[in-house]
Amino acid sequence: MNSFEWYNPTKIIFGEDSFEKISKEIPKNARILMIYGGGSIFKNGIYDAIKKQLDGFYVEEFGGIEPNPTYQTLKKAIEQIKTNDLNFILAVGGGSVIDGTKFISAGVLFEGDSWEIPKKGIRVEKAMPFGTVLTLPATGSEMNSGAVITNKETGEKLGMGSPHLFPKFSICNPSVIKSLPKTQIQNGIIDAFTHVLEQYVTFPIGASLQDRISESILKTLIEITPKLLNEPYNVTTASNFMYSCTMALNGQIQKGVPTDWATHMIGHELTAHFNIDHARTLAIIMPNLYRVKFENKKEKLAQMAERVFNIEKTDTNIMAEKAIESLEAFYKEIEMPYKISDYTKEGKGISEKIKETFISRNWLGLGERKDISPDEVEKIVEMSL
Amino acid sequence: MNSFEWYNPTKIIFGEDSFEKISKEIPKNARILMIYGGGSIFKNGIYDAIKKQLDGFYVEEFGGIEPNPTYQTLKKAIEQIKTNDLNFILAVGGGSVIDGTKFISAGVLFEGDSWEIPKKGIRVEKAMPFGTVLTLPATGSEMNSGAVITNKETGEKLGMGSPHLFPKFSICNPSVIKSLPKTQIQNGIIDAFTHVLEQYVTFPIGASLQDRISESILKTLIEITPKLLNEPYNVTTASNFMYSCTMALNGQIQKGVPTDWATHMIGHELTAHFNIDHARTLAIIMPNLYRVKFENKKEKLAQMAERVFNIEKTDTNIMAEKAIESLEAFYKEIEMPYKISDYTKEGKGISEKIKETFISRNWLGLGERKDISPDEVEKIVEMSL
Repeated sequence: MNSFEWYNPTKIIFGEDSFEKISKEIPKNARILMIYGGGSIFKNGIYDAIKKQLDGFYVEEFGGIEPNPTYQTLKKAIEQIKTNDLNFILAVGGGSVIDGTKFISAGVLFEGDSWEIPKKGIRVEKAMPFGTVLTLPATGSEMNSGAVITNKETGEKLGMGSPHLFPKFSICNPSVIKSLPKTQIQNGIIDAFTHVLEQYVTFPIGASLQDRISESILKTLIEITPKLLNEPYNVTTASNFMYSCTMALNGQIQKGVPTDWATHMIGHELTAHFNIDHARTLAIIMPNLYRVKFENKKEKLAQMAERVFNIEKTDTNIMAEKAIESLEAFYKEIEMPYKISDYTKEGKGISEKIKETFISRNWLGLGERKDISPDEVEKIVEMSL
Repeated sequence: MNSFEWYNPTKIIFGEDSFEKISKEIPKNARILMIYGGGSIFKNGIYDAIKKQLDGFYVEEFGGIEPNPTYQTLKKAIEQIKTNDLNFILAVGGGSVIDGTKFISAGVLFEGDSWEIPKKGIRVEKAMPFGTVLTLPATGSEMNSGAVITNKETGEKLGMGSPHLFPKFSICNPSVIKSLPKTQIQNGIIDAFTHVLEQYVTFPIGASLQDRISESILKTLIEITPKLLNEPYNVTTASNFMYSCTMALNGQIQKGVPTDWATHMIGHELTAHFNIDHARTLAIIMPNLYRVKFENKKEKLAQMAERVFNIEKTDTNIMAEKAIESLEAFYKEIEMPYKISDYTKEGKGISEKIKETFISRNWLGLGERKDISPDEVEKIVEMSL
């Protein structure tokens, strides 16, 4: 196990009754900017439910955060906060709204152009306090301090993070799942599942407890998936889903272990080129990344085969192959297409383009061993067409 | 799954190199009271290692915190802080030193007699900041906000807790295990194992992920125990042990689930009467509590049998019985005696005494269903003689 530091001060408020607890978490003198996305919260009743809880506070609103939040939109929210002297942000949405809120929270107290924060990797030393109301379980952004922001003009999609960017609180109400379309639930399952795999399918390092907690999340997601997709709303199933998504990326399972994240980096390019949903790009890339980096990952793949997919213990290579097959079988069970051609007819030539992008960005060694070459990236994408 | 709130802002700094990271965690202007126990830190080198890291800070010391920290000792530390205008506390020790430090941290900012805090259950609204250096993995106090304090004069042993009583940081260096006697490692294993069971062996409530994380801690403890007790120091084994102890009582696995804690409450009385180590009282009581409350607990006992002790799935009653037998077999593997008569010849009549104590304190319904009667407490203790 590697040395590690683990710090996560976000207060999670979980349950069907959690909306009612929001007002006691917001400072009395708060002048709030409530931030949301494309407006689904007006249709599903969440907007009304939250506004009712904010009675007595001064509240302005900022809507229209995109699925991949852009600097161009977010800087308008920063202006609104400055102009109207607001002092607290409430994000009501999924990972994109929460990620965007983190950028706003840092940007509003930053002297200069806020895009420099992700662009130059500037250390965020202060940020405006914010809370979240999670409307879409998937990314874990409600309990971590990271964000991914897109610059529409330059085409860049960059990550940022800081210990100052943890939400003060996150309201996790499983009933929000009731109104989600099936595609978004599929995305949430795969997003959370892949988050765990990026932190688990690397090489063994003797972190017995972290491994088992990762396996716990994977097994729970597998267990609940049929009910979640095919049965009417059930609070127990919804709660296990929502909690698993949070746990998959709240930082805990990465403590003391190597992490990969190459699937995410390659997947981001598929979203940039073809606008394929983030989670779906992960399903497309991951199995083929495992095939190409098989020697690196076979011990942990075999462990996953045994402990997560209940495959009888035999030869490591055979078990590792079965783990990859089981992963694809899980996509099929979810009815999640996992080939580029399932989403676009324009895939020809993309593998070389992505390879060139990685070379131009000097991303020459990816993954937990920093040994995934641009040629291997090309091969992985080619296998995923 | 019940609704829950989860908040834990303690920063865990974990690893063999963690001592070196302590000075950057302490405020620059800190006037420190370093608190420790009976002096083992002088023999094992931890005192010197920590003092070296505190070079440049103003440091006073307060030693002599007892294994069950007493109000009478702790109030002297409160006086020292007030008299000399200190503003930061560093606990260097195990659960007793850290628990005592929490009491001091609250007491020093409390107007009036600090014993009133646990005695009257006064809500702690402010506390002096403190960090910890963990020297003995067992209680989880390094990552929670609770403490148990004894009043030598009245014989009371009372719990207290507050969101203001989380350590600012805890230094978890697995190499401290090198110098521990076998009895303390045995105690640590059983303490952590029992902490999990108190939060897990109750009744099913559909908390799939919490259950699996609890099982992860139990399985890890079982896995590492032979190496931990019988082989020379190994950093991987020691790290898994230390991390499991922290995870067993940092609040996470109790979120959204019923909890029991009756074994702890009965066990405390055995410590009070016979001075038996806390962990050993837990081993004495728990199997018989499970026998007496079998109907309440058999579903979760059967689940533990299957998932933790790898017992083939059959009838619930049979599996639940095998879980209790497996628990006792685990004590035997650890060479942990688990009968009152293994520790004292004065056990006769104790079951009735403890029953009377519970009646006098109005503890008429214990456990996750609040249905353990004083008569059942008597029976449990009688079976444990």
